Amino acid sequence: MLDLKILRELEETLGRGRVKTDMESLISYSYDGTFQERLPDAVVKAHDVSEVSNIMKISGAYGVPVVPRGAGTGLSGGVVPLKGGIVLEMTAFNKIIEINMRNKYAIVEPGVYTNDFAEAVEKVGLFYPPDPASSKSSTLGGNVAECAGGPRGVKYGVTKDYVMGLELVLPDGEILNVGNMVDGETGWFDLPLLLTGSEGTLGIITKIIFRLIDNPEHKQTLLAKYDQVIDAGKTVSSIIKNGVIPTTLEIMDRTTIQAVENFLKIGLDTEKDAFLLLEVDGSKYEVAKQLEQVKQICLECGAVEVETASTKEESDRLWKARRSISGACGKINPTKIGEDATVPRSKIPEMIVRLREIAKKYQLKMVIFGHAGDGNLHPNILTDKRNSEEMERVEKAVSELFNAAVSLGGTLSGEHGIGYMKAPFLKMEMGETGYQTLKKVKEVFDPKGVLNPGKMFMDEEMF
Amino acid sequence: MLDLKILRELEETLGRGRVKTDMESLISYSYDGTFQERLPDAVVKAHDVSEVSNIMKISGAYGVPVVPRGAGTGLSGGVVPLKGGIVLEMTAFNKIIEINMRNKYAIVEPGVYTNDFAEAVEKVGLFYPPDPASSKSSTLGGNVAECAGGPRGVKYGVTKDYVMGLELVLPDGEILNVGNMVDGETGWFDLPLLLTGSEGTLGIITKIIFRLIDNPEHKQTLLAKYDQVIDAGKTVSSIIKNGVIPTTLEIMDRTTIQAVENFLKIGLDTEKDAFLLLEVDGSKYEVAKQLEQVKQICLECGAVEVETASTKEESDRLWKARRSISGACGKINPTKIGEDATVPRSKIPEMIVRLREIAKKYQLKMVIFGHAGDGNLHPNILTDKRNSEEMERVEKAVSELFNAAVSLGGTLSGEHGIGYMKAPFLKMEMGETGYQTLKKVKEVFDPKGVLNPGKMFMDEEMF
Repeated sequence: MLDLKILRELEETLGRGRVKTDMESLISYSYDGTFQERLPDAVVKAHDVSEVSNIMKISGAYGVPVVPRGAGTGLSGGVVPLKGGIVLEMTAFNKIIEINMRNKYAIVEPGVYTNDFAEAVEKVGLFYPPDPASSKSSTLGGNVAECAGGPRGVKYGVTKDYVMGLELVLPDGEILNVGNMVDGETGWFDLPLLLTGSEGTLGIITKIIFRLIDNPEHKQTLLAKYDQVIDAGKTVSSIIKNGVIPTTLEIMDRTTIQAVENFLKIGLDTEKDAFLLLEVDGSKYEVAKQLEQVKQICLECGAVEVETASTKEESDRLWKARRSISGACGKINPTKIGEDATVPRSKIPEMIVRLREIAKKYQLKMVIFGHAGDGNLHPNILTDKRNSEEMERVEKAVSELFNAAVSLGGTLSGEHGIGYMKAPFLKMEMGETGYQTLKKVKEVFDPKGVLNPGKMFMDEEMF
Repeated sequence: MLDLKILRELEETLGRGRVKTDMESLISYSYDGTFQERLPDAVVKAHDVSEVSNIMKISGAYGVPVVPRGAGTGLSGGVVPLKGGIVLEMTAFNKIIEINMRNKYAIVEPGVYTNDFAEAVEKVGLFYPPDPASSKSSTLGGNVAECAGGPRGVKYGVTKDYVMGLELVLPDGEILNVGNMVDGETGWFDLPLLLTGSEGTLGIITKIIFRLIDNPEHKQTLLAKYDQVIDAGKTVSSIIKNGVIPTTLEIMDRTTIQAVENFLKIGLDTEKDAFLLLEVDGSKYEVAKQLEQVKQICLECGAVEVETASTKEESDRLWKARRSISGACGKINPTKIGEDATVPRSKIPEMIVRLREIAKKYQLKMVIFGHAGDGNLHPNILTDKRNSEEMERVEKAVSELFNAAVSLGGTLSGEHGIGYMKAPFLKMEMGETGYQTLKKVKEVFDPKGVLNPGKMFMDEEMF
C-alpha cells in the first residue's frame, strides 16, 4: 500500500479520481500473458508526456516502482508489478502522428495497436514488417520494449531493425530524445537500439520513430509435410544455405498439428510428424522462381507432400492452422509455458532432438512450433500451474532447455524479452562481466531502481 | 612523457623492445586521415587478447590514456592521441578465424583489412556489404569503431547492420563478450550495437562476429548527367519515393567532376552541373527491370543524358571517376576537410542549396559528392591548413554546415564518427539530457577516462 502522501501528490498532479487503488483495478493490472501475478499498489493512466514526467518525478522522489504497461500481452512477464508500486497505463498514447511517405518513416505514440499501425502504413503503400502473433492486441510501445519479432523476422528482421528514434521519460522526469529521421548511416553509438528491448527498465517510451519500407509486389504460400520432424529441420538449414530468404519459414511439430486439428477440425493430416509453412515475396517473377527453388529443396530434404496456394483464400486456409496454435494449446492444458530460446539455423535438427529428450525426461507435454527460419523454435510446455509437482518438473525442463540453446551457440530470447521469467538465466548467457556491465548501464538511467524492478536483472529475494 | 615506472611495467609485461618511445615511432602514430596531430608518449603493438588485457591493467592503474589504432585512415580524428598516452596498435590481430557458410557469419580479428575480408567472403559465395572508400587500407576494427558506411549503405546499411557480436577488453583488463551467432532476433538491449560506433571510448575490440548475406546474382551501373545539380537531388528523392532501392546512388557535383577530369583526363563532361552514379543488383530479371525504372525517373527529373554500362569494363570506367575523387581533390588544395553530415533524402535539394550558399558566404572551395541515396552528401572543403585566416573561415563554414544538417532533421555523422572533429557539435544534436546520458554510459565502461580521451565528448580544455 502506497503512503497516503504519495497518493495525494499523484492525485494533485493528475486530478481527482485518476489514481485507482480499488481492488478491481489492482487485480486487472496484476498479470500479463505469463502465469505470474502480483498486485500493484496503484494504477494510473497517463494522457501526455508531461503527465508521465510528473508521475516519474513523484515516483523518483519517493523510490516507488513504476511499471509501464501497454496491452499486457507480453510473454516474459514484463508488466507484472513484481514489487508493487504504480502500474502506468500508456494506452491513451494512441495517435499515429505522421506517416512520411517521401522519407519513409512514421512517428507514432506507444499505445497504438501494432496491427492498426501496420494497416495504416499499408494503406499508403508502405510496409511495417514486424508481425508478432499478438499484433491485433499488442501495442507498439510494448513491441519496442520487448523487441518483438514475428514470422517475417527471417527476411525482415525484428522491431529493433525499424526503430530510428525514441522519446522517453527518465526516472527524474527528464525527457530524452534519441535518434532521428535519417535512415541508414548514423555513426556513433546507438542509444535508440540500446533502448529497444530495454523492457521498461531504462525509461518510459512516449514516442517512436519507425523506419518503413516498400511493400513487396506479390507473395505466395507453400506448405510442406514431413514424416520426420528432423527432415523439416534439415530443410530449413538447406533453404538458408542455398540463399533463398523466404518471408516466413514456420515449423509445426506433430503435437502442434494434433492440437490444432482437435481445435479446428479442418482436416489437417495428423499422421505427419511436422509441417513447414513458407511464404515468399517479391516481384511476380521472383516469387515464382523462389517458390520453385523452395519446393525442390523441401522434396530433396524428405518432404512427403508439398502444397502451394495460388489464391489468397487458399493461402489464408494454410495460415489458419498456424494462427490457431495458441488457442488450440489452451484447450489441452490451462497453462502454456512458451519459450523462445533461439539457436543458429544449422543447429535446428539438434535442438529438436534435445527438446524431445527434455520433454520425455520430465514427462511433459511439449509442442514445438515457430519461426524456424530464425532458429526460434518456440518450445511450449502445456501444463497446469495449480499442479505444483508438475510445475517443479517444468522448471527443471525450462532450465535445461535454456542450457541447450546457449550451449548450441544460441540465445535465451528470440523475441519475448527477458522479463522476470528469464532473469535467472541472463548471467548464464552474458557472463559475469557482461551482466555487471548491463546492470551498470541500468543504473545510469535508473539509479534508484524505480523502473520495472525485478525485470531482466534478477532480484535475489524474489527467486 | 610517461613515468619510467610505467614504461618499465609495460616492457616487463610485453618483453624487451616492445614499447617504442623513439621520435620516429611517436611521429608515425601522431595523426590519421584528418589534419590534427598530437604526439603519443609511447607506441605498443599487441599480439593477443591477454597482452591487450595486461596493457589495459597497467594503463588503468596509472590513469594513462590508451588510443586503440588500426590502419589510421579515419576521417574524424578517432586515433589522434589528443592527450598523449599509449597508442595501441592492433594490426597484428589479422586473422579471419572462421567463415561459417551454413549459418552465414564470420569471426574475425579487428586488424584484418576490410577489402581482404570482403574478398575472402566473396570467394565462398557470400557477401559482406559495407564498403567504405578506404576499404583497401582500413581495418575491420576501425570500421566497427567508427561504424563505417560506404556507397552500398543505401541498400545494404552500414557496419552496425552486420555486427552480431564483439569481444572487448575493458579498462580494468576484463574481457567482455557480447552478442552471439544467432541472427535476427535477440530481444533485450543490444550491447553489440551500443559498442559499434563507440570509437574506442568504451573498450578495445579484439574479436568481431559479422553477419554475412548472399551474393546478388547480377549488377549493372548507370550514369545520369544533369545541367542542374538540383535536378540530381530531385532524382534521388523520386527514386526512393518510387520504391526502387539501388545498391548505390552516388552524386558528384560540378566542382568534383572538374577536379576528377583535371586529375585523370578521361574525357568527363565538365560542362555538366552534376552526375548521378547508380548501381542496381538482384536477379537478371530484377536488374533489367530496375535499370529501366531508374532510367525513366532520371529523365523525368531532368537528366540530359543517361549512360548504362553493359560490361564489367564499361562499369569500371564509370566508377573510376567516383573512386578518384579523393586523390583528385588532393591535387587542388593540400587540405581536404571532408564532412559527412546527413539529411533526410527529401531534403537533399535544399541541403545542396544551403551548402553552396555557405561556400559562397565564406569564399571557400567546396566539392559535393557522396552517398546521396542515404542523404549523406559529403561536402568537402578544399583548403590549406597552413593558411590560418582561411582555416578560421573553414571552421565557421563547418559549424554552419552542421547546423544546416541538424535543422533539416539530419545528423552530424553518416559514417565517419564524431572523433574530436565533431565533438563540439554532439550536444547540439543530442540535447543536454541525451549528451549527459551518453557521457554516463561512457563512465560505466571507463570510469577513469583512460580510453581515447577527448573523443566524442568534448574536453573543454582542448577547444
